[in-house]
Amino acid sequence: MSALESVPQKPDGAHEVIIESPRHVQDITELSQAELARVLQVYRRRLLDWSTDDRIRHVSIFKNVGSAAGASLGHIHSQLVALPDVPPVMVAKLQASQRYFNANQCCIFCQLMEEELAHRKRLVIDEGPFVAFCAYAGRQPYETWIMPREHAASFEHLCDRDTESLAGILQQVVRLLQTQLTPLSYNLVLHTVPFQKDVADHFHDYFHWHFELVPRSTQLAGFEWSTGMHINPLSPERAAARLRVE
Amino acid sequence: MSALESVPQKPDGAHEVIIESPRHVQDITELSQAELARVLQVYRRRLLDWSTDDRIRHVSIFKNVGSAAGASLGHIHSQLVALPDVPPVMVAKLQASQRYFNANQCCIFCQLMEEELAHRKRLVIDEGPFVAFCAYAGRQPYETWIMPREHAASFEHLCDRDTESLAGILQQVVRLLQTQLTPLSYNLVLHTVPFQKDVADHFHDYFHWHFELVPRSTQLAGFEWSTGMHINPLSPERAAARLRVE
Repeated sequence: MSALESVPQKPDGAHEVIIESPRHVQDITELSQAELARVLQVYRRRLLDWSTDDRIRHVSIFKNVGSAAGASLGHIHSQLVALPDVPPVMVAKLQASQRYFNANQCCIFCQLMEEELAHRKRLVIDEGPFVAFCAYAGRQPYETWIMPREHAASFEHLCDRDTESLAGILQQVVRLLQTQLTPLSYNLVLHTVPFQKDVADHFHDYFHWHFELVPRSTQLAGFEWSTGMHINPLSPERAAARLRVE
Repeated sequence: MSALESVPQKPDGAHEVIIESPRHVQDITELSQAELARVLQVYRRRLLDWSTDDRIRHVSIFKNVGSAAGASLGHIHSQLVALPDVPPVMVAKLQASQRYFNANQCCIFCQLMEEELAHRKRLVIDEGPFVAFCAYAGRQPYETWIMPREHAASFEHLCDRDTESLAGILQQVVRLLQTQLTPLSYNLVLHTVPFQKDVADHFHDYFHWHFELVPRSTQLAGFEWSTGMHINPLSPERAAARLRVE
C-alpha cells in the first residue's frame, strides 16, 4: 500500500468567520456584555445548524486575538471550522474522559471542578453557573479554563440567560489577564462534544464542554514539536494568585 | 479517584545543552561541515550514554534557531531532553508505523522514501546515504524531512562517515531555505527510536529515524490548539520546486 495514501480523506468541511461587531474594536472587553452574549448565541445557532448536516461530525470554534496568537485581522471576529471527522485533540479528550468515566462512574470535568472549588489554589472566578481556573497542566502561563458548573456536554444547548453569565465571566477573565500580560495575545477555543451520529456514542455521559483560554507569551519550540509536551515556566497556583489579587 | 492525580508521574529526566562552537555564530551554515559532523557525533555519544540509564526511556534532541522558533539564546547550540517515558508524539509515530508494518510487512518510512524518489515532486536533495524532501503533510510551509536511505531505527548507530554526509545535507537544506525565508527561524528535531527496554519492543523493525526541519513563518493559532490539525498555506510540491530552482 502507498505510504502516502494510507489515510482515507473526506473532502467535506466549511470555514465561517463570525464578525462580532460593526464597530472596529479588537477585543471582547470592548463589547458590552449583551453584545458578547449575542456572539455566543451565534455560536449556538451555527452549531445547531451544522448538527443537522450528515457530512459534518465536529465543529471547532475559536478566536485568535493579537499577532502572537496568529491573528491576521484586528477587527473583532471568531472562526468556525466544520469538520467531517473528530480531530485528534478531541479524540484524545474523549478517550481520556471515557476511560475516567468507566473507572469512576463520574465525569472527569465535574470531578476536576469539585476539586478546584474545594482547595481553591488555582481558582480564578467562581460565580453563578460558571467556574474559571488556571489549568492544572496548562501549556502556557496563565492558561485558564472556563466551564459550566452543571454537567453539560454540548455548548449548543446553553440557554439565553447562561450566555449572558458566560459573556460576563469571559470578559472578567480577559480583563484579569490584561493586568498581567501587556499586550495580551490569546487563543480562546471552545471544546464541545462531537455531534452524535451513532446510538453507540455515549459522549454526553462523560464529556463536558469548556473554553480554553490560552494566552500566548512563549513560543512553541523544538521540544514541543518533537514530543507534544509543553514547557510552562509559571505554575498555575502562582498564575491564579496573581490574577485574583489584581 | 482524584481527577488531578490520575496520571502517574515519574520524576526522572535530564536537560543538556550542547554548545556547538566556541565562536559566537548562530547557525549551522556558519560551521564547517567537519564541525557540524562533530556536533552530530556528540548527539550520538549522548544517546549512547543515556541508553544505558534504566530511568530513561527516550531522548529528544532539537535545535531552536531564531526568535520565531522560540530561541532564547543566539549562540549556536542544541538541546537534549532525556525522558522517563515515551512522549505523545513518539507514541503516535510508533503506533502508526507499527500499524503500517503489520499490514504491509514493510517500514512506512522506507516506502515513503521510495515513493518520494520515484515521482520527485517533493524531493529537495537526493545525495549519498540521505534524502531530503518537503513533507507530504507538513505543518508549516517548507517543512522538510531528512532521513537515511537505508533502514535504521536509531540515530546512535550512525557511523562517522555518515555523520559527515548528514552534516553536508543539513547545511544544504538550511542554505536552500534561507533563499526563500528571510530571516529564517526554524526548529530542527531528531526523531530516533526509544531505547529498547523490553524484548517485546519491536520498534527497530518498523521505525526509521529522521530529522524534521520546521521553518517557522506562521503562528499556531486557535484551530491548531483546538484540533491538533495544522493549516499550511503552501503545498509541499510548490515548496520543493522553489527550493530546487534557487
